[in-house]
Amino acid sequence: MSTFQSLPGFREFYPEDCAARNGLFRAWRTAARRQGFVEYDAPVLEPLELYQEKSGEEIKSQLFEFEDKGGRKVALRPEMTPSLARLVAAKAGSLRKPLKWFSIGEMYRYEKPQKGRGRSFYQFNADILGEPGVGADAECIALLVEALKECGLREGEFEVRISDRKLWFLFLAALGADKTKIPEVLAIVDKWDKDTSDVAKKKLEIYYGNKTENAFQKINAFLRNAGDTGEVWESAVQDEETKFRIGDWSELEKKLEDLGVKSFIKRDLRIVRGLAYYTGFVFEAYQTVGTARALAGGGRYDDLLMKLGGVDMPAVGFGMGDMTVSDLLNELKRPLTDEGKLAVYLVIGGEKERPEALKLVGQFRAAGLSVDYPLKEERFGKQFKTAEQCGARLAVILGPDEAAAGQVKIKDMLSRVEVAVPNNPGLAANVREIVEKGLSA
Amino acid sequence: MSTFQSLPGFREFYPEDCAARNGLFRAWRTAARRQGFVEYDAPVLEPLELYQEKSGEEIKSQLFEFEDKGGRKVALRPEMTPSLARLVAAKAGSLRKPLKWFSIGEMYRYEKPQKGRGRSFYQFNADILGEPGVGADAECIALLVEALKECGLREGEFEVRISDRKLWFLFLAALGADKTKIPEVLAIVDKWDKDTSDVAKKKLEIYYGNKTENAFQKINAFLRNAGDTGEVWESAVQDEETKFRIGDWSELEKKLEDLGVKSFIKRDLRIVRGLAYYTGFVFEAYQTVGTARALAGGGRYDDLLMKLGGVDMPAVGFGMGDMTVSDLLNELKRPLTDEGKLAVYLVIGGEKERPEALKLVGQFRAAGLSVDYPLKEERFGKQFKTAEQCGARLAVILGPDEAAAGQVKIKDMLSRVEVAVPNNPGLAANVREIVEKGLSA
Repeated sequence: MSTFQSLPGFREFYPEDCAARNGLFRAWRTAARRQGFVEYDAPVLEPLELYQEKSGEEIKSQLFEFEDKGGRKVALRPEMTPSLARLVAAKAGSLRKPLKWFSIGEMYRYEKPQKGRGRSFYQFNADILGEPGVGADAECIALLVEALKECGLREGEFEVRISDRKLWFLFLAALGADKTKIPEVLAIVDKWDKDTSDVAKKKLEIYYGNKTENAFQKINAFLRNAGDTGEVWESAVQDEETKFRIGDWSELEKKLEDLGVKSFIKRDLRIVRGLAYYTGFVFEAYQTVGTARALAGGGRYDDLLMKLGGVDMPAVGFGMGDMTVSDLLNELKRPLTDEGKLAVYLVIGGEKERPEALKLVGQFRAAGLSVDYPLKEERFGKQFKTAEQCGARLAVILGPDEAAAGQVKIKDMLSRVEVAVPNNPGLAANVREIVEKGLSA
Repeated sequence: MSTFQSLPGFREFYPEDCAARNGLFRAWRTAARRQGFVEYDAPVLEPLELYQEKSGEEIKSQLFEFEDKGGRKVALRPEMTPSLARLVAAKAGSLRKPLKWFSIGEMYRYEKPQKGRGRSFYQFNADILGEPGVGADAECIALLVEALKECGLREGEFEVRISDRKLWFLFLAALGADKTKIPEVLAIVDKWDKDTSDVAKKKLEIYYGNKTENAFQKINAFLRNAGDTGEVWESAVQDEETKFRIGDWSELEKKLEDLGVKSFIKRDLRIVRGLAYYTGFVFEAYQTVGTARALAGGGRYDDLLMKLGGVDMPAVGFGMGDMTVSDLLNELKRPLTDEGKLAVYLVIGGEKERPEALKLVGQFRAAGLSVDYPLKEERFGKQFKTAEQCGARLAVILGPDEAAAGQVKIKDMLSRVEVAVPNNPGLAANVREIVEKGLSA
């Protein structure tokens, strides 16, 4: 007889927690469907090779991996994108493009459990596949904003910072690096604040040789001003290709404005995102109240489906975990819930009235009302207390007096008003109406 | 560049499949909430010992088990009950009883994939804990019936067969076996149809000695008639204890009748259920159209929480997998879906109208309408075709003519009726109304 514990980094969901989780799922789902995204899902357990070849080094080091009873090397999914790519690639020819797909699923990463980070967490993934134009980026970023708003977050509480791997490519190449090596240079930029100047220069030297000092200074200046809109943009427009890309930026920002989400958007070229597969605009949502933490992130990844599934399918998407968003909502005292309130608690006088009471329970439920009742004989007082604790909208009382009079009593648990109504075939409809309108004195 | 496959026995959910799955989840959730059950969940990955000590031998042999990076022996959950027992035991003192809890979660068992059986499947679990009386059994069985009805199944398409491990205990003990050994005898009864008479007798001999032949004949006769209601019941009433138990049966059946589900119920003592932890009434739902397959099963397990978590908490519950129910619904051509239909597809004349069109998209969505639109310039014909394919309720058209006139055209995609309405601040509300009511000539 031992009391077992759950594993570290894994959560148990008691009813209240489960209602909060489901409330978040509902918010994500509502926002996605409102924008015409459709839901998909994929297995939680996948062949290990799916992640070995394409996931980032950090994710690969955190895999829950093992050999199954059939000798297959398998892993619990740490991210959704590889499975998505497989699904889409397998039916690329028959799926109507662009695809606007979302999923809500659990991911698993063996990392140190801490606030806002567990070994299992839920992730909302939304992607548009098959459309290379800026219109898809705008629609995707709009969903990111709308999903956070649907969770209950408001203007001034979060922002979406947009950056651009393509602009970085052009910029870093112009400083003298080989174009094919830019992803490696971007990895250096991604660690800029963590490295000392000497370390960064040493790393850059491989790519810039005797132009390293200049490259270092330019990158540093670029990063220092990358949250601004003026200077950096001016300095970025050095050639036709860059000018053209600045045009894409204008188009993106205009569309975000038209879609009504511009006030949540900020340019921020400091964001380069670690994952090597991003190819264009990248973006991250940050909370701007309390501790500034990332709530979601994504970007354009036009080459990944070719690499993973052999189909040419441009794509843009993002992922949002449940833990930081939930933490923020709790800090703001705006927790979500998806708990359906009980409509009726049926208070039963005694065993003599029970058969008739159970019939009412059946009738009310058949009318679509949620109904609970005591499973065994209980004092009136205790039953009313339970009705209260369940948050029941109404108590419907069938005691000996009511039964004798062919009636039931209905009590509005909010206004405390009571009425007696006949127990006839119209009762369920009557109760339904009172659930909606309440009783007032 | 390889095309990866998912693992055998694991399913991918393309949008249509995902909508069907979510439709089933919604049906389960609706039925459970209507009866005042609240949802919980627990980790998908658990310490191996949770199952090693309490799950049946078959389940234990099918575990996806491994060692995590921290050297812990872990397993993907093959069933929900052990996790439920842990959750309840950990907070037994502070939870208001009876608990009416349900969950919808994925389970994993390494078995041979076949029709209606995968290595991963979803399971609806519903349990009432803390109430030993027959009222809880009735409420639980009523939920089983109502959940299947909510899935779209009708009278005559399924039945719930009820049996009783307690009655079997009394019966088998009366034939001369040691009371403490009855679970072992029941395991023999559970395999009755699979064993030859000789094998069964040999197994019985350990428990019945020289009374084996009589025991064999009586059990055989009992099983042959156990689907009937008369003879078996007569023969079962041999002592006070058994008479008392028959009284429980009457009470259970009366309550099921009052709750309005009696017509779905059948006595069937052939059901003993393999799991050793059941202690009272046990029941299984079977489809009665097409191949007779079990859709769900459960029963009373009053001792399990003491064994697992050290708390005295009587319990009754059931589990229902998603695969056989879905197969049946598909065979009946009544598949479920949870796909929200698109309210509006916005048809955009050209790039000149796009900014205004995107503003309408934003406004309509802010009014709660689901809206999709082409992400890049497309011919009218193609846009209307997409609107059709998405199942959009309305097409809202903003072409050059409409823009010039300060209007939009609204087309009911069902009735094909079109109207022109002013593009003013009241438009979103106007469109919302038309989505609800449609346009008729």
